[in-house]
Amino acid sequence: MATWAQYLGEKRDRFVDQLLELLRIPSISTDPAYKTETRRAALWVAARLQTAGLEHVKVMETAGHPVVYGDWLHAPGQPTVLIYGHYDVQPADPLELWASPPFEPVVRDGRVYARAASDMKGNLLLTIVACEAMLRTTGALPVNVKFIFEGEEEVGSPNLVPFVAAHKELLACDLAVSADSGQYSEDQPALLVGLRGLAGLQIDVRVGSSDMHSGIMGGIAANANQVLVDILSALKAPDGKITVDGFYDDVLPLSDADREMMAHIPDDTALSVRANGLKADAGEAGFTPRERNWARPTLDINGIWGGFQGDGVKTVIPCEAHAKITCRLAHGQSPSRVIELLTAHIGRHTPLTADVSVTPVAGQAIPYLIPADHFGLKAANSALTRVYGRPPFLMRMGASVPVTAIFLQVLGVYTVSYGFSQFDEKMHAPDEFVRLSNFEKGQQAYCLLLEALAR
Amino acid sequence: MATWAQYLGEKRDRFVDQLLELLRIPSISTDPAYKTETRRAALWVAARLQTAGLEHVKVMETAGHPVVYGDWLHAPGQPTVLIYGHYDVQPADPLELWASPPFEPVVRDGRVYARAASDMKGNLLLTIVACEAMLRTTGALPVNVKFIFEGEEEVGSPNLVPFVAAHKELLACDLAVSADSGQYSEDQPALLVGLRGLAGLQIDVRVGSSDMHSGIMGGIAANANQVLVDILSALKAPDGKITVDGFYDDVLPLSDADREMMAHIPDDTALSVRANGLKADAGEAGFTPRERNWARPTLDINGIWGGFQGDGVKTVIPCEAHAKITCRLAHGQSPSRVIELLTAHIGRHTPLTADVSVTPVAGQAIPYLIPADHFGLKAANSALTRVYGRPPFLMRMGASVPVTAIFLQVLGVYTVSYGFSQFDEKMHAPDEFVRLSNFEKGQQAYCLLLEALAR
Repeated sequence: MATWAQYLGEKRDRFVDQLLELLRIPSISTDPAYKTETRRAALWVAARLQTAGLEHVKVMETAGHPVVYGDWLHAPGQPTVLIYGHYDVQPADPLELWASPPFEPVVRDGRVYARAASDMKGNLLLTIVACEAMLRTTGALPVNVKFIFEGEEEVGSPNLVPFVAAHKELLACDLAVSADSGQYSEDQPALLVGLRGLAGLQIDVRVGSSDMHSGIMGGIAANANQVLVDILSALKAPDGKITVDGFYDDVLPLSDADREMMAHIPDDTALSVRANGLKADAGEAGFTPRERNWARPTLDINGIWGGFQGDGVKTVIPCEAHAKITCRLAHGQSPSRVIELLTAHIGRHTPLTADVSVTPVAGQAIPYLIPADHFGLKAANSALTRVYGRPPFLMRMGASVPVTAIFLQVLGVYTVSYGFSQFDEKMHAPDEFVRLSNFEKGQQAYCLLLEALAR
Repeated sequence: MATWAQYLGEKRDRFVDQLLELLRIPSISTDPAYKTETRRAALWVAARLQTAGLEHVKVMETAGHPVVYGDWLHAPGQPTVLIYGHYDVQPADPLELWASPPFEPVVRDGRVYARAASDMKGNLLLTIVACEAMLRTTGALPVNVKFIFEGEEEVGSPNLVPFVAAHKELLACDLAVSADSGQYSEDQPALLVGLRGLAGLQIDVRVGSSDMHSGIMGGIAANANQVLVDILSALKAPDGKITVDGFYDDVLPLSDADREMMAHIPDDTALSVRANGLKADAGEAGFTPRERNWARPTLDINGIWGGFQGDGVKTVIPCEAHAKITCRLAHGQSPSRVIELLTAHIGRHTPLTADVSVTPVAGQAIPYLIPADHFGLKAANSALTRVYGRPPFLMRMGASVPVTAIFLQVLGVYTVSYGFSQFDEKMHAPDEFVRLSNFEKGQQAYCLLLEALAR
């Protein structure tokens, strides 16, 4: 009988083909025009779980896009592991900046270029492939495994809380493992122990009932764009501090040990700066770039629009203008409190000539930190050490993975983030790609993790 | 021998018929489908000039629609007056909102309803009719007269500058008179003495080579939207003053007489505020709304855009953001100097983390103010006072009228705006109309103006 490692080696090309197949489905969850495609991705994933030998596979409805479930529960006395991922993807615009079309994957120099190659269709597929390899070779998995793949991660998982709450028994487990994660580099593993939270809102400014002519009304009418930029500019000081009253009050200060651990991991700021074509790093005074990204709250204007965007000149005074903002939250902060503070601050900066409405957007997440002595963290540590030949960095991440907070709150379990993307793979941007070497390494790493989790 | 006044009275009905005839030609300059009709209007006007007794009448080609020219130059020692108008019209859609078809003029209660009745086929015809009345009765005009009627005013007169520049000698004159204008009300005349200038630019902010993920790069990367709103917000103070260094330096201060004249004209700010659904008027501290609109510079952000504008949430840090700005300029300011000042100011507010480029946009116009003691203004003033029995309001306008700047720059002459429309006549909208009483009053007013202009 072959080993799972041999099985993975033999089927290598087939698994890559399957990845390309999945990447061709434009499962853009935020855009209603792609509803059918998003469902098609769910059906593809369900079929793949079935082929792999998982049981009770089903596509389960939610108020939004469906959840795909499957399990293998024939390891009595062993822990139950819930493997999480998402089959939905970010929008691909601006399309003109892609070297090849985002949903026509291209393999070039050991990389697959496509939307969601890195975030996270590669990571998703490798978890299934790992289980298939064990089931087809040893006929069993070392632990009990449940899969949950949602279709709304890229819009902030709005239906995941009700779904998990409604299916607590089905999803009951001892540990969750999120495949929506990455490694430090091609030869340095890492485990994610902390995530920032997220709070977002939309600002809508209105000063009048229709757009106006700047000759006829200039000097008489307020300009919605000006009201908006004044409000937005008042959210931050020149030193990068967020100036919203009370914004930092709940942030737990970093201990000396925290700062030391962070300083120990090679600083890749210069790399990120170069990779993104930045002139320099920027952010809150008094903290290192890593501290700012991992453990300090940030505020970003994700989108602004108002008035005329065409070619040439149009002397219009716009009657409305809009912005989308999200804040990354540090440990201690709560999304609802941050939205309260922002709403109050914006209210205080609204002139009498404008109506400004602030609407929270879906995708709030509380910040997350896993205890250092957790059994899942230890198993993951040892599995990664075997694959890479060195222990992982214990890292944090500036992003949010709402699911970790949800699993902790609703299922009472911590989540080990165990994925194989790298941070230079242009997630959410044009020319996203995944390294096929990581796609393969991740398959082995999942087999080793399941073995390490067995008592 | 009859007087011109008697002549105008006798031919009254015939002139109205001619107006209806001209209004039946759909000379929509913006729509290539109406190219032949637009030329037909030019030919109609040329024929009408000829019938009236004008000489050297010709239809002159441009890169777009033709210009109609005609003159009468037999008043040696007298000034030469260039009368300007346009024979093209706005599109008529939405057609379903018209009570009667736009190019089938209907006379109802002393008004003619048709596209261009008010803007400006009535005003155009009455200038010709006035000259005819004088030529047929006295056999001469009191001054030398040249006519220039263009066919592209409703599309921004793109070929007028090259045309005027190429025919400087033909168009040489002591004064221009624009018939494309109106009166304050049926019994209150007005003269337009000032127009604001215009300067515009586009701001392009770039911080990196591609959009970034706010979790991965938040706290490390500058945000192009934030850079943009900080730059834009720094252009104005909370009291509405433009904070660009040196911006007001060239603005000629309003004299007490200016401010008194403006205050004397009934204020329609409350009306504008209501019509545009505004909560209140807004603008520079220390000036009335009318002063701000007529005689003070303003700066409007006509458009802003950057990052994600779709539904839902996208946690992106945009690498680029854009804005379009135009300034209305007060007397004394020059568009190129204002653009220099803005560019320097924006440069000073550009952080080290961003590249910001500033590009002037087409459509610059210098501000315009006819000197109070100008002989043309005095003649127009006395003619209107005779027709209406009261002196005209000396008004300004917050917008730009390119033709006045063109005549001043290329021909070196000021323009008296001398037309008989009223601002309630639905120009550019369905059910446009002209009052026949004004059509007649305007004919007399033109005869009196030509007499008053004679030395």
